Amino acid sequence: MNDTLYLDHNATTPLLPSVLDAMLPYLSEHFGNPSSDHALGRRAHGAVENAREQVADLLGALPDEIVFTSGGTESNNLAVRGSTRAGAHARRTIVTSSVEHPATVQPLARLESAGWKVTRLSATAAGSIALGELASSIDDTVALVTIMLAQNETGALLPVAEAGDVARAVGAVMHTDAAQAIGKIPVRVEDLNVDLLSLAGHKFNAPKGVGALYVRRGTSLSPVLLGASQERGIRPGTENVAGIVALGAAAVAASTELVERSRHYGDLRDALWEQLWAAIPGITRHTPEHALPNTLSVSFPGVLGGDVLAHAPDLAASTGSACHSGAEHPSAVLTAMGVAHAEAMGTVRLSLGHGSTAQNVLQAVCLLTRAFRAVA
Amino acid sequence: MNDTLYLDHNATTPLLPSVLDAMLPYLSEHFGNPSSDHALGRRAHGAVENAREQVADLLGALPDEIVFTSGGTESNNLAVRGSTRAGAHARRTIVTSSVEHPATVQPLARLESAGWKVTRLSATAAGSIALGELASSIDDTVALVTIMLAQNETGALLPVAEAGDVARAVGAVMHTDAAQAIGKIPVRVEDLNVDLLSLAGHKFNAPKGVGALYVRRGTSLSPVLLGASQERGIRPGTENVAGIVALGAAAVAASTELVERSRHYGDLRDALWEQLWAAIPGITRHTPEHALPNTLSVSFPGVLGGDVLAHAPDLAASTGSACHSGAEHPSAVLTAMGVAHAEAMGTVRLSLGHGSTAQNVLQAVCLLTRAFRAVA
Repeated sequence: MNDTLYLDHNATTPLLPSVLDAMLPYLSEHFGNPSSDHALGRRAHGAVENAREQVADLLGALPDEIVFTSGGTESNNLAVRGSTRAGAHARRTIVTSSVEHPATVQPLARLESAGWKVTRLSATAAGSIALGELASSIDDTVALVTIMLAQNETGALLPVAEAGDVARAVGAVMHTDAAQAIGKIPVRVEDLNVDLLSLAGHKFNAPKGVGALYVRRGTSLSPVLLGASQERGIRPGTENVAGIVALGAAAVAASTELVERSRHYGDLRDALWEQLWAAIPGITRHTPEHALPNTLSVSFPGVLGGDVLAHAPDLAASTGSACHSGAEHPSAVLTAMGVAHAEAMGTVRLSLGHGSTAQNVLQAVCLLTRAFRAVA
Repeated sequence: MNDTLYLDHNATTPLLPSVLDAMLPYLSEHFGNPSSDHALGRRAHGAVENAREQVADLLGALPDEIVFTSGGTESNNLAVRGSTRAGAHARRTIVTSSVEHPATVQPLARLESAGWKVTRLSATAAGSIALGELASSIDDTVALVTIMLAQNETGALLPVAEAGDVARAVGAVMHTDAAQAIGKIPVRVEDLNVDLLSLAGHKFNAPKGVGALYVRRGTSLSPVLLGASQERGIRPGTENVAGIVALGAAAVAASTELVERSRHYGDLRDALWEQLWAAIPGITRHTPEHALPNTLSVSFPGVLGGDVLAHAPDLAASTGSACHSGAEHPSAVLTAMGVAHAEAMGTVRLSLGHGSTAQNVLQAVCLLTRAFRAVA
């Protein structure tokens, strides 16, 4: 796969060497069950608790505020369903955006069918929400506000801190899905005014199958999965020890390298856009100014994004969100932003990450320009 | 940890070398997201589908009957809650045993609090259920019968095939938690008359954090976690590709080595019991005749099992179920079997597995005898 130019880091990321090195011993000699009261078990338990501190440090949280899960989908389910099940039942409204991930959208739809009122704030043309609409939508009937931090398709950054401020002023719980933001921009729970925050390991160079939910001390949360007493009963099941250790190591790297990564990705992304804009007359850009530094969503004029990528088989990128690709209809997120059908269908998402270089940018522009000319 | 004599394979198991070898490429070069429509994504998708065939083959099932999960707890939650949510709502009774794992017990308790009737069959002295009570408890008001295949603490085998026969005769869904049985005894869905079957990777030499649920074609099942369309919508979330590949490789090994493993474990377990019985006057045995070949649950007379193990620090074993250890009260399973309080508190569970040898048996007997004499 060394021939593939990988610009699909918002779909998933490769493991960092330091992450693989950290987890491997827990796939071999240190294989104990953290619940076992013997040396092998205690070793595994200690590794999980060490990773809990590492993830907490990344977020500026306390270790006992971190619950490990199987990934971003489970974290979002636990946040949305766990907080509404546990919360004050006099409040029956949830406020959210129109650009959330299906792992938030679908739990909300189930709650709605169970009688909850779900208020979906309009998407702005920049893929965000309007603060005025937010403020007028939140009152003391609201149990939960859930607004993602960074949009996976466009990279748009949403005003989570402002939303959290408004939510908490009326006693609502504030959740953000930060899966796409971790490792790319600073994500600190105190700055964001959040009570719950979801993250997914595979979006920041840890493996697939592990994630976490930050749960601020004092936030009531019921478990979604039920069983034994792991994770203080909030998330039962034998811990994915190797995955959790990897998550901790990836958190350390994300924290250490954040400033450098952010600057580097931003420089590359800006160069990518400038060169594509110069090469493809009529190309448009969905990624707003206020966005993740690594993400560039563009629309090739008069063609299908999928056709462009089919003619650039050495380039790995996405036409939409990787979690629900294969669909022939335009992205719901772009549609919510008011992007016209034809323009939405011409979309290609390019997302930079670990190992991306200026040379990659030149190659990508070359491959995409050639592919566009072949299909235009 | 090479100094530890590991006889706690019912708590968790080491990875087989073949399993680690199979999964490693999916933690390095083959890191794509199975939902991505490019070479790296297709490679990951193909690996997941290959593993699905391997797990299906182990069970005598079809590939499209396998749903990957994060482990045994999630599989049991999905089976119990997914089938009752999807099922015929005129039926409001669930029949189960008194020796199930918390990952079955707790979902049933929640259903009970939501108005379902849960019939818990008495545990026999051998840790199983009585077929007469089973037959008289199942009628056409029963939506679901859930009976584990092998009990994790005692190793007792339960009459799942007989229960499935009765359950299906009245149109109920039959589920078994086979987590503890896989790789130790034959587990074939046709022979067991089951519609749903749970398994957990880390109980048979795959990593923690991955499992599967067998869902017979035609069985209605609602998802528990909600999100995108992975696993045909039954289990959303980006697939744990490396873990799933490992699960497939472990399934191949479990199938290939089953006869040899079963005989070898049984020989060692019988030798272990004979030698302990000869060395410790008054020792009793909870593991019945009809049991997993690798498991031996015994009670040391007049002492606490935890004290015995504390005096044998080079031996890794369990006083109860690893998923909820640390508790000072006697095992609920042993209590349900009618084991007296003092005898239950004297319990040590020894469980053999990959790499266990006759020499290990001699060492274990020596360590346990010395420890018992120190505390008796």
